[in-house]
Amino acid sequence: MRVLGVDPGLTRCGIGVVEGVAGRPLTMLGVGVVRTPADAEPALRLVAVEQGIEAWLDEHRPEYVAVERVFSQHNVRTVMGTAQASAVAMLCAARRGIPVALHTPSEVKAAVTGSGRADKAQVGAMVTRLLRLDAPPKPADAADALALAICHIWRAPAQNRLQQAVALHAATAPKGRTA
Amino acid sequence: MRVLGVDPGLTRCGIGVVEGVAGRPLTMLGVGVVRTPADAEPALRLVAVEQGIEAWLDEHRPEYVAVERVFSQHNVRTVMGTAQASAVAMLCAARRGIPVALHTPSEVKAAVTGSGRADKAQVGAMVTRLLRLDAPPKPADAADALALAICHIWRAPAQNRLQQAVALHAATAPKGRTA
Repeated sequence: MRVLGVDPGLTRCGIGVVEGVAGRPLTMLGVGVVRTPADAEPALRLVAVEQGIEAWLDEHRPEYVAVERVFSQHNVRTVMGTAQASAVAMLCAARRGIPVALHTPSEVKAAVTGSGRADKAQVGAMVTRLLRLDAPPKPADAADALALAICHIWRAPAQNRLQQAVALHAATAPKGRTA
Repeated sequence: MRVLGVDPGLTRCGIGVVEGVAGRPLTMLGVGVVRTPADAEPALRLVAVEQGIEAWLDEHRPEYVAVERVFSQHNVRTVMGTAQASAVAMLCAARRGIPVALHTPSEVKAAVTGSGRADKAQVGAMVTRLLRLDAPPKPADAADALALAICHIWRAPAQNRLQQAVALHAATAPKGRTA
């Protein structure tokens, strides 16, 4: 199973691609960050995020995309950019027919460290170990994106069957427009 | 000047197209709502919103798109959907090179009613009068989208010159991606 994880953000959108199945060693296929300049027009930043994510999808052709589920627990300005970047990631994947899974930060932390309250250093250390890397990926957004992908692979057996059923069903949903 | 206003939302995304210039009678070219089913997958709802907005842009070819600026003042669940739908609208417009303007709800209310604290009925009544309609457009999301377009036309003379300068500048901004 090949999963592309996205830690959404406008300034830094972390991307990590992991391949493997639960119970077997995992392989990192790529990791990086899509950046957009903080002083650019918001709409143009979203276009840049879309182009960046499309390039990653083109290159790695993942079977699943795992995106961090955004909550309004941070400050308002940050959470808006995060929600908007996550929308772009979800859109890019769903448009290609790739199932999208949303995982909360605590689900991701619990999956890779055993604790939903683990700090960034702990997540980075476990990602490094699980993917047999020489050093933790930087910045933290990149490590978090890999953790999201790992989380999805490990939680997948039950969840993916549900996702596929829902996707099949929703593909025929009405796209209403009244004038 | 032809402006497409968007009152963003996942369940109901209001769309209104208005043509005119400040100081002259305005003309409504279209109004409606893009709807997505509340029980569909979030990512597929975003795809449906994108398809709906693209159809409106294809049909009306606006010179500007005005989107409501989203704040985190409502409940968390609603504001996330609103932020994500607004991201899709901004993305669709910017991808085509159409300048995107963001206006706050109080800017829009003040523009069409004279008061930033006007209620929905007052906004609906003024939209009806300014566009010489027989009755207020329904649902309220549709009326709000028209109000956004009117607000943009009236605020435009200064703001659009700024938008165009920024858009020109940002078109060359880097779309970073490091591995």
